[in-house]
Amino acid sequence: MPTWLLLTSLFWSLSDGGKVLVIPLDNSHWLSMRLVVERLHQKGHEIVVVAPDVNMRIEPSLHYTLKTFAVSYTEEYMKEQLQNIGQNIFSQQPFLARMTETIARTRIISTLFLNTCKELLYNKEMIAYLEENQFDVVFMVPVSPCGQIVAERLSLPSVYYSRGFPCGLEATQCPNPPSYVPRFFTGNTDHMDFSQRVKNFLAASLEFLFCYLLYSPFHVLSTEFLQREVTVSELYSQASVWLLRYDFAFEHPRPLMPNMVLIGGINCEKKSPLIEEFEAIVNASGEHGIVVFSLGSMVSEIPMKKAMEIAEALGTIPQTVLWRYTGEVPPNLAKNTKLVKWLPQNDLLAHPKARAFITHGGSHGIYEGICNGVPMVVMPLFGDQMDNAKRVESRGAGVTLNVLEMTSKDLSDALKAVINDKTYKENIMRLSALHLDRPIHPLDLAVHWVEFVMKHKGAPHLRPAAHDLNWIQYHSIDVFAFLLAVLLLVLFISLKCSLFCFRKCFGRKGRLSKKSKSKSQ
Amino acid sequence: MPTWLLLTSLFWSLSDGGKVLVIPLDNSHWLSMRLVVERLHQKGHEIVVVAPDVNMRIEPSLHYTLKTFAVSYTEEYMKEQLQNIGQNIFSQQPFLARMTETIARTRIISTLFLNTCKELLYNKEMIAYLEENQFDVVFMVPVSPCGQIVAERLSLPSVYYSRGFPCGLEATQCPNPPSYVPRFFTGNTDHMDFSQRVKNFLAASLEFLFCYLLYSPFHVLSTEFLQREVTVSELYSQASVWLLRYDFAFEHPRPLMPNMVLIGGINCEKKSPLIEEFEAIVNASGEHGIVVFSLGSMVSEIPMKKAMEIAEALGTIPQTVLWRYTGEVPPNLAKNTKLVKWLPQNDLLAHPKARAFITHGGSHGIYEGICNGVPMVVMPLFGDQMDNAKRVESRGAGVTLNVLEMTSKDLSDALKAVINDKTYKENIMRLSALHLDRPIHPLDLAVHWVEFVMKHKGAPHLRPAAHDLNWIQYHSIDVFAFLLAVLLLVLFISLKCSLFCFRKCFGRKGRLSKKSKSKSQ
Repeated sequence: MPTWLLLTSLFWSLSDGGKVLVIPLDNSHWLSMRLVVERLHQKGHEIVVVAPDVNMRIEPSLHYTLKTFAVSYTEEYMKEQLQNIGQNIFSQQPFLARMTETIARTRIISTLFLNTCKELLYNKEMIAYLEENQFDVVFMVPVSPCGQIVAERLSLPSVYYSRGFPCGLEATQCPNPPSYVPRFFTGNTDHMDFSQRVKNFLAASLEFLFCYLLYSPFHVLSTEFLQREVTVSELYSQASVWLLRYDFAFEHPRPLMPNMVLIGGINCEKKSPLIEEFEAIVNASGEHGIVVFSLGSMVSEIPMKKAMEIAEALGTIPQTVLWRYTGEVPPNLAKNTKLVKWLPQNDLLAHPKARAFITHGGSHGIYEGICNGVPMVVMPLFGDQMDNAKRVESRGAGVTLNVLEMTSKDLSDALKAVINDKTYKENIMRLSALHLDRPIHPLDLAVHWVEFVMKHKGAPHLRPAAHDLNWIQYHSIDVFAFLLAVLLLVLFISLKCSLFCFRKCFGRKGRLSKKSKSKSQ
Repeated sequence: MPTWLLLTSLFWSLSDGGKVLVIPLDNSHWLSMRLVVERLHQKGHEIVVVAPDVNMRIEPSLHYTLKTFAVSYTEEYMKEQLQNIGQNIFSQQPFLARMTETIARTRIISTLFLNTCKELLYNKEMIAYLEENQFDVVFMVPVSPCGQIVAERLSLPSVYYSRGFPCGLEATQCPNPPSYVPRFFTGNTDHMDFSQRVKNFLAASLEFLFCYLLYSPFHVLSTEFLQREVTVSELYSQASVWLLRYDFAFEHPRPLMPNMVLIGGINCEKKSPLIEEFEAIVNASGEHGIVVFSLGSMVSEIPMKKAMEIAEALGTIPQTVLWRYTGEVPPNLAKNTKLVKWLPQNDLLAHPKARAFITHGGSHGIYEGICNGVPMVVMPLFGDQMDNAKRVESRGAGVTLNVLEMTSKDLSDALKAVINDKTYKENIMRLSALHLDRPIHPLDLAVHWVEFVMKHKGAPHLRPAAHDLNWIQYHSIDVFAFLLAVLLLVLFISLKCSLFCFRKCFGRKGRLSKKSKSKSQ
């Protein structure tokens, strides 16, 4: 063991494992965040996970103590909201109606976050419990600033677990030039022409407004709860470390801050060989292999017409298709297509017989596609999926389809292309090689940084001084104005002096010569 | 072994070790760069180091093939230049005379770099040799762009090994706000008041000018040699990866780019226990322990008056002082002070009896002080040493002295402070703990990234698209101007329309009413 490692471990062994308070988000985030939590538990830390008593995926476990708090909505209400989103995607409405509905739904989700947060913060028993337990760190998902409000109340450092750059990025002080850093929902890559840069610039401005609308209610809540004026931006700026599920094999290169740690692909740890049921299907697929198809857990059902179109397309390829689908079975389902209620996505993609991956483009799925080098057909549905799809496409590692507008032939052609055209496979293998060639596994890295923050009680040495500057100071506008004023003053004085000297030297002569002239006249 | 690591190593084993062309810089850089070179050799790569035949530290080794090229200057000339710099530091000249001499000396060094580069590039035999050998990567120090010109000629990717951010940083496209990122030679920290920000802003502007002056001759040389127009900024922008001897335990937090890898403290690998001669001295030091004192290899001699002042101060402490000094022995040298021609600095600092470190503040020494948690008395001499000293002082881990102005008492007081005042020890131990708590050793990280660039033939996925934008595009000035024009046009048209409507509606009435008034009169 090298001395530096010995020193580090000696330092750490003094405290005999720490206590981690986890405030997760109940969706696919939790699936990969749980990996970090489990590893932290294995390393001897005590973990408490705090979640609403109505949730989809956060279940009790031997790895952590689950503490739930009561919320006023029911499980049915929550499921209904999620289903509505899923159905909304496939509804053929005019653009404006769709937009209005999307905004309304965002507000519902945002209100759900806010209410859940209120029910946590004003749950006296829970807060008393959290205060009694001397935690070392809050490990949280920053989609809602609720975890940070708790961290502030408990005076604890925090580590964020995030898909990418958050709404209200200015909280990180990370430079984010709209000229080459594409904004969400624009479908831009990092190489933009003038009109795309205009679009990106506008999106950046709108993002600011959107974030304000989304988070302003939390400003009121946090100020009230913490009994001091605190903006959401200030809350987020307190993060010791941002663990970002982000990797440049997939994302476009951009500036980062010292407290940003990239752990993209953390979910690709291949855990187990295929379970028997799937092993049999895969082995029976013969030389043609398999295609894995999942639109994620949000989409339980799609309109029958669309399902039939898809089923028809799937029937045109010789591969066996494993389709995760819980809706009504399309009557035209071909023999090569197996409908399943659930599938071990990463294990299937890791199988050498995997030929293609049809995905909605959620970030977890995309990274599983990249890790395992399986070319993709991406049918983005909402959120960051359009942008993920664009990134895959821009790297020649897959084809993007508009799920609403695509025909059966489009899907069939796309599948045949990614399976038979070798360039897709070559490109995804290149991305895979870049992504997997890392000095340390993202899971180890994530665990290291959570432990780092616990040991050192935060990471203030990674906090840029930019947090202490206002907008004018940060951009040196006051300095520039001052120097300009000095320059102008110097110019003015020089001019005045020159003029004065000029008059002294030539003015008198001029007058003299005039005088002499007049005398001579 | 995890699957991803297995995959990576399988991938690599195909090529059975690569070929690395090393273009180093002949000074302390080489001491730590050599560690990476040796490790690369141990990992089975073939290494060729190219250096001028007149040099101080780059010697033949079993780890690499040393290929030298003839230069027109002699060893005596080079030594004389270095000695002149060392002596110049201690010469009591007026400010302007010192500045003029410093600039003149910088020009001499710069011309030396340029001439050395010319002699490499126009050495036909050497270039033919380099072209014949199919290298995989150029591993170089970017103080001179010469290595990159070679890399361009050979169409090879390059990895840079650098102390910190280079002159002409814009080549990396890394944001560098002067409002909180202190510039070299200003002595600023990251927290600046208004006047310091003005100074920093001016320094940033001057830096630009200075870099232009320093590097413009290379523009001519590279354009001539590569037979295409290529600026130095373009050359530097080609770097696949920057390995930076930089660590936020010591440096102020600032933005980074994806191709920047921090390997600060790479030189702190403790290689061996103390050699017998030093072990004896250290053991004899008793409970008071030792003080390590070195002003680096550039300073072989200091004026006797100053040396005597220093010797007097060293005599006032109970510790045994190990002073690396090759000049004339000061007659007042106290019994506790041992003069040595060389000392195993890192091994001594690593000894539990080390109480303080008197250093000129070179980055290697500073990191050794931090790694080993030894509080410092810094006497900066030139270059980045003033800034290093300021960083140590701003973290409460040491005291800075002006070597020209300090009295014997100042040094004595400073030494007693860092040895007896516990806060210095506590602060340096905290920095040490932060610095050493890393998921992977900097040497392994450096080797990983050199191998990465070899395997993947560069790292284009880490290259920001900002390189393809001009200044106006990067700052979105064209977009802003366009949107402003559109806004003004819309306002103008709205105003015209409103005015037109207003006239239509009220103008006629007005005229009518006038008419009617005139009629009624």
